[in-house]
Amino acid sequence: MTQSQIPGYTYGTGTVLRSPVSLQDFQEMKAAAMFTDEDIRYLKMSYDVLSDQVEAILDVWYNFFAAQPQLRHAFDQKGTGKPEPKYLAAVRKRFGRWILDTARAEYDQEWLDYQYEIGRRHCKEAKNETDHVDAVEYVSFRYLIPTVYPIVSTLKPFLARKGHSPADVEKMYEAWMKSVLLQVALWSYPYVKDGEY
Amino acid sequence: MTQSQIPGYTYGTGTVLRSPVSLQDFQEMKAAAMFTDEDIRYLKMSYDVLSDQVEAILDVWYNFFAAQPQLRHAFDQKGTGKPEPKYLAAVRKRFGRWILDTARAEYDQEWLDYQYEIGRRHCKEAKNETDHVDAVEYVSFRYLIPTVYPIVSTLKPFLARKGHSPADVEKMYEAWMKSVLLQVALWSYPYVKDGEY
Ligand code: HEM
Ligand code: HEM
Repeated sequence: MTQSQIPGYTYGTGTVLRSPVSLQDFQEMKAAAMFTDEDIRYLKMSYDVLSDQVEAILDVWYNFFAAQPQLRHAFDQKGTGKPEPKYLAAVRKRFGRWILDTARAEYDQEWLDYQYEIGRRHCKEAKNETDHVDAVEYVSFRYLIPTVYPIVSTLKPFLARKGHSPADVEKMYEAWMKSVLLQVALWSYPYVKDGEY
Repeated sequence: MTQSQIPGYTYGTGTVLRSPVSLQDFQEMKAAAMFTDEDIRYLKMSYDVLSDQVEAILDVWYNFFAAQPQLRHAFDQKGTGKPEPKYLAAVRKRFGRWILDTARAEYDQEWLDYQYEIGRRHCKEAKNETDHVDAVEYVSFRYLIPTVYPIVSTLKPFLARKGHSPADVEKMYEAWMKSVLLQVALWSYPYVKDGEY
């Protein structure tokens, strides 16, 4: 599926707001995470490893979320508490694309701007707008950092499936961990009180 | 150094506020991080491994922070921009104790309350108060999540130093990763806008 065929995936388009975090700010965040050019190389290595496994990875993640009421709640309709299947399906397409974008590791201004957009889509600022759904108003911040662990750790078997050495698998895994930590830090911006980010 | 000898370490005392996150809420956060009783066991295993290496670990962490202006900035005096050595030294003692408390893994109400206190001490609500210093007003939230990586990853060689099997070292490492993610999630509470936590 090409970019333009994914509904609501606005990466690189004029509708995305400018990130309040500059590339220089992000440089300092990367240093704080020990994220270097070596991580970029290993993320790019993971691209070829993961690109034909996206649907299988999404199955694992969606099953994990579906099994936990406090997580799947974010996809429930506001009034009824029933899940919104069309919402789940629409987000899943963009989530799959996110796997590729993370592994592509072109962390430039357009990418930074889209991270701001992903943050806005998790919190009250813009949740539900993209898919025109009437679901609960925000993803509770309390779960964003803890779920870094399942998201990244469940990748490990997929990273190991293409015959890379254990050392390379480990490096790809660590690069993913740092990248997802940095992304969740970027997504936090609209959740955090003014003047403390 | 016993608990009562560490200035400002108020864990378990009446001066600590009640956590806004209940034990039941924390239960749901743990599930989101795949944190189980097995992690408690491996954290406790790490206690004996790490307890006589605390100063060496703190040296690594403090050197990492000292090398990065954007991180050590949090310890600077407000007006002059000069570091506050007495502040660094006072926090270091409590940081050492935190290593033991994390590994002790008695994550009960008193522990939960102290996590709220640690969060408050990073943000405007209570930074600098404990050590009566006039340092910068808050730790920028943008660095809290990224530094999970250096904090946890630099532990690995220390975890491996007491002859445990690679599998046990890995399990201790993963348990630490989950625990620190959960703690940073708890510490975020006072940073996050009302009604989105
Ligand atoms: C590290 C953890 C997480 C990652 C990597 C992640 C990733 C993503 C991605 C890539 C998207 C689609 C962004 C786009 O529109 O292009 C998304 C949307 C969404 N995520 Fe997350 N997410 C995480 C945590 C969570 C948690 C904990 C919840 C719920 C408890 C959640 C609920 C949602 C919802 C409801 C949407 C749709 C938002 C909308 O209305 O546009 N996410 N997430
Ligand atoms: C995962 C990352 C982090 C961990 C595990 C951590 C841990 C701790 C601990 C255990 C304490 C002492 C709490 C007590 O008073 O008992 C502390 C205090 C402090 N930390 Fe952090 N911290 C982290 C991130 C950061 C970052 C990124 C900065 C600065 C950029 C920072 C700056 C400080 C400062 C300035 C204090 C003293 C606060 C006060 O005035 O009481 N920390 N931290």
